[in-house]
This record gives sequence, C-alpha cells and structure tokens, in this order.
Amino acid sequence: MHTFEELSDQFATHFRQEHFPAEPSSLYNPNRYFLGLGGKRIRPVLCLMGNELFGEIHKDAWHVANAIELFHNFTLIHDDIMDAAPLRRGMPTVHEKYGQSTALLAGDVMFVVAYDYLNKISVSYLSAIISIANKMAKQVCEGQQLDMDFEKRDSVNFDEYIHMINLKTSVLLGASLKMGSVINGASERDQHELYEFGRKLGLAFQLQDDYLDAFGNPEKFGKQVGGDIKSNKKTFLLIHALEAVSPSQKAKLNELFFSNDENKVSEVLTLFKESKVDEWAMQLKEKYLQESLTHLDSISVQDERKQSLRKLAHFLIEREH
Amino acid sequence: MHTFEELSDQFATHFRQEHFPAEPSSLYNPNRYFLGLGGKRIRPVLCLMGNELFGEIHKDAWHVANAIELFHNFTLIHDDIMDAAPLRRGMPTVHEKYGQSTALLAGDVMFVVAYDYLNKISVSYLSAIISIANKMAKQVCEGQQLDMDFEKRDSVNFDEYIHMINLKTSVLLGASLKMGSVINGASERDQHELYEFGRKLGLAFQLQDDYLDAFGNPEKFGKQVGGDIKSNKKTFLLIHALEAVSPSQKAKLNELFFSNDENKVSEVLTLFKESKVDEWAMQLKEKYLQESLTHLDSISVQDERKQSLRKLAHFLIEREH
Repeated sequence: MHTFEELSDQFATHFRQEHFPAEPSSLYNPNRYFLGLGGKRIRPVLCLMGNELFGEIHKDAWHVANAIELFHNFTLIHDDIMDAAPLRRGMPTVHEKYGQSTALLAGDVMFVVAYDYLNKISVSYLSAIISIANKMAKQVCEGQQLDMDFEKRDSVNFDEYIHMINLKTSVLLGASLKMGSVINGASERDQHELYEFGRKLGLAFQLQDDYLDAFGNPEKFGKQVGGDIKSNKKTFLLIHALEAVSPSQKAKLNELFFSNDENKVSEVLTLFKESKVDEWAMQLKEKYLQESLTHLDSISVQDERKQSLRKLAHFLIEREH
Repeated sequence: MHTFEELSDQFATHFRQEHFPAEPSSLYNPNRYFLGLGGKRIRPVLCLMGNELFGEIHKDAWHVANAIELFHNFTLIHDDIMDAAPLRRGMPTVHEKYGQSTALLAGDVMFVVAYDYLNKISVSYLSAIISIANKMAKQVCEGQQLDMDFEKRDSVNFDEYIHMINLKTSVLLGASLKMGSVINGASERDQHELYEFGRKLGLAFQLQDDYLDAFGNPEKFGKQVGGDIKSNKKTFLLIHALEAVSPSQKAKLNELFFSNDENKVSEVLTLFKESKVDEWAMQLKEKYLQESLTHLDSISVQDERKQSLRKLAHFLIEREH
C-alpha cells in the first residue's frame, strides 16, 4: 500500500508525459501551458487509491487517472472562460493568454484526449468505466449551470446549494475513487460506499474552498481572495450568513452584494466574522468529513488498507492555505 | 437497401426522441432548442448507409448515428460562439438566445451525451468505434483552430487550406460512414475506401458551401450570404481568386478584405465573377466528386448495394440553394 504522497509523486511523474500531438501548436500549446501550471492532482490519485484499496495497482488505473486529470483540466479551462477569471494558480488563464476561442477549443480537445485514455483499458470494464465517467461529466456540467443560475437569483436555499455543489464538485471525487475500484473488481456495495466517501469528502472540500476564498492567505491560495464576494457568488458562507445574521445585518449584506463599492470585500468579511460564519463553516466541514469516514469504515476490506485514504481525507480537509 | 430519403425520414423520426434529462432545464432546454432547429442529418444517415452497405442495418448503427448527430451539433454550438454568429438555420444561435456561458456548457454536455450513445453498442467493437470517433473529434477541433489561425494570417496557400478543410469538415463524413461499416464487419480495406469516399465528398461539399455562402440564394441558404467575406474568412473562393486574378484586381481584393466598406460583399463578389471563380469552384467540386465515386466503386460489395450512396453523393453535391 502506498501513501497519498507516494502516489502523488508517482502520478506527477507519470503525468509529465506528452498528451498531445505537436501540431497544430496553436491548439495544443495552450493545453501544454495549462497542464504545466500544475495542480494538486488529487482526483487521479484518488483513482489510484480507490484501485489499490482492492489489490495491486492495475495499469488501467493509470490510464483512467490520466483521463480524470485531463477531464478536470478541461472543466477548469471552460469554467475560467465562463467566470471570466484572469488567473488560475497565480498565472494567466488559457482564455486570457490565448484568446477565448482557442480556450474553448483547447478544452474540447482535452476532453477528447481524456476519452482516448479511457479507451486504452480492458474492454471487460470499458463500458462500465465510460458509464461512470459520462454520468459524472454530465453532472459536473449541470452543477456549473446551476452555479451560474444561482448567481442571477435573489435567493438560493441551502438544499439547492448543496445539490449544486454536489454536482459541480463532489461527484468527480466520488467517481474517481469508484472508477479505480471497478478496475480491481470491487463489489457494487463497496463501489457505492467508496463513491459516497468521496462525495462527502467533496462537500467538506468545497466548504473549505469557500472558506479559503474569503479567509485564506492570498499568497498560499493562488487565487484572488474575495473573488466569490466580488462576483456575487452564492457560497456556503453567504447562504448561511443570510439565514444567520440579524435583519439589519442581512439588509446590509444584500446591499453590499449588489454594490460595486470598493470596500465590498472587506465589509462583507467583517459581517461574516461578526456572525461567526467562519466558525460555522469549520463545524459543517467537520460533520461532512466524519460522514465521509463512516462510509470508508463500512467498506469490506481490511482496515489497514484504508489508512492511506483516511490520512488523505484529513490532509485534504485540514490543509492550510 | 434503402434510399437516402427513406433513411433520412427514418432517422428524423428516430432522432425526435428525448436525448436529455428534464432538469436543469436552464442547461438542457438550449440543447432541445438547437436540435429543434433541424438540419439535414446527413452525417447520421451516412452512418446508416455505411452500415447497410455491408448487411441489414444493425441496431447499434442507430446508436452511433445519434452520437454522430449530437457530436455534429455540439461542434455547431461551439463554432457559433467562436464565429460570433447570430443565426443558424435562420434562427438565433444558442449563445445569442441563452448567453455564451450556457452555450459553452450546453455544447459540452451534448458531447457527453454523444458518448452515452456510443456506450450503448456491443463491446465487441466499442473500442474500435470510440477510436474512430475520438480521432475524428480531435481532427475537427484541429481544423477549427487552423481555420481561426488562417483568418488572422495574410496569406494561406491552397495545400494548407485543403488540409484545414479536410480536418474541419471532411473527416466527419468519412468517419460516419466508416463507423457504420465497422458495425457490420467490413474489411479494413473496405472501411478505408468508404472513409475516403466520404472524405472526398466532404471536400466537394465544402467547395459547394463556400460557393453558396458567396453566390447562394439567401432565403434557401438559411445563413447570411456573404458571411465569409464579411468575416474575412479564407475560403476556396478567396484563395483561388488571389492566385487567379490580375495584379490590380489582387490589390483591390486585398484592400477590400481589410476594409469595413459597406459595399465590401458586393464588390468582392463582382471581382470573383470577373475572374470566373464561380466556374472554377464548380469544376473543382466535380473533380472531388469523381474521385469520391472512384473510391466507392472499389469497395468489394455488389454494385447495386452502392446505388443509394452514389445517388446521395450526387444529391448532396448538386443540391440547389
């Protein structure tokens, strides 16, 4: 059994291969650039760990891990266009550097290359893997659309918000683990428990992401802090705050959110802190983390095989930024 | 054996099924809208015909035909964003009607649904079909990127142009036919000849498309006539014209192309006609059509089985608009 760090290093090396043809360089250089920006490669490593939970790591798990990372990067390139984001990991986004049309196409073709990797695996489970990947991919698109819809709406309730985050963020973590487990013949019940482990971990992860966007250290976070507030994004923090604050604070929050006041970010953050939204977020994150670990516990493999995933969950959720 | 018209009717009925979930309607209604605009459905019917060339139409050919039509529509939605096209088939494009971000996502998810249909076919040839589809999809993206690159360049030679059109337009026709043939067990040689039949037909088709964009009847064409000229698009017509006209006409053409003169379209068309670009285009179209038919002739099935494809080639290329 490998630790997350070991598999993370191995995957980083493995993934540093050439995924694209040389030409046309105007299409593929943007993809090379974007992958070169790095990233934590959490999702492909989850696939490898989900695979190793049920046996030795199978070579097909590496192909699927590549596909997952390419899929994830495809969604980032397109999300950056939709969000008009200037930076990703502290560097210019693809559309910022190469223009929007090229970013759109570079994302499209990266998605195709992801399917190329899926198509390298044994036909004995090719259809099962594609089925999981497709379902997940549709859900991710649905989540992104709901996210955009919510930005335009006056109010979004907590259930709606969780549903959106589940689609946009969590199902990819669940599916990455599940695909790995399918390759090593996990039972349907274990596939499901592992998927739920990842899905709940994803919710905790997003809570933390929202938290960091508001309260994180900008140098470590690698994105604009307060970006969600600037773009009027509904986040766990805002949705809870609107329910938790006093009527006068709520009026102030609503007013701030639809203003372009230059102090908008700092004033919203002050309100968040006054109503202890930061503490609430950390508590809810912990609740999801515990639910996630309960699913992991219920999987029918020896407990020691689960240690790496358990440690990873703590690492991901308790990371400092 | 069925005629193109018969299969076209059958496919139109078959394709009128629900391809998308109900929710989120903000994501899937744009897709329903776009598919509702219709289209000639030539590519999926090519798949069915390529399949029937080698036996009775197999149910999997219908799944692949759906995938092909969805893939084609995905590329149209994204191309319309890149071209900032206001109309498609005389109606507002998806980005025009629903906004650019939704159009981007609607295209992405349509692509996933295309893979869902591919994933319904027998695993005995699933990998082979995905391999053809992926190669084609990458080429279509590459062709679109080259097309955009060429728009920005001062000069593009004929070979470069043909290479781009081959990728952007022709390989999808070839791949549609080939995928159909694979399902009914065609030999590799026959698969290749059929692919080349489609590919050459695609070149003839594009020549005609460029011709119609310049000289077509706007009411029948369903797009802005002169759109290629307005957007400074390199087309078969322009590239040939720049080689065929007199030095003074060439200077005038170059000047017109980089102007925003309100008479730009009509003046370019006059120059095209003076240098008989319209006649040249019709002759080259005929050459590609003949080469295409030679590939069809060489396929090792009874000649009478090829009649529908032969008639289709003439119908597609000699259609009036």
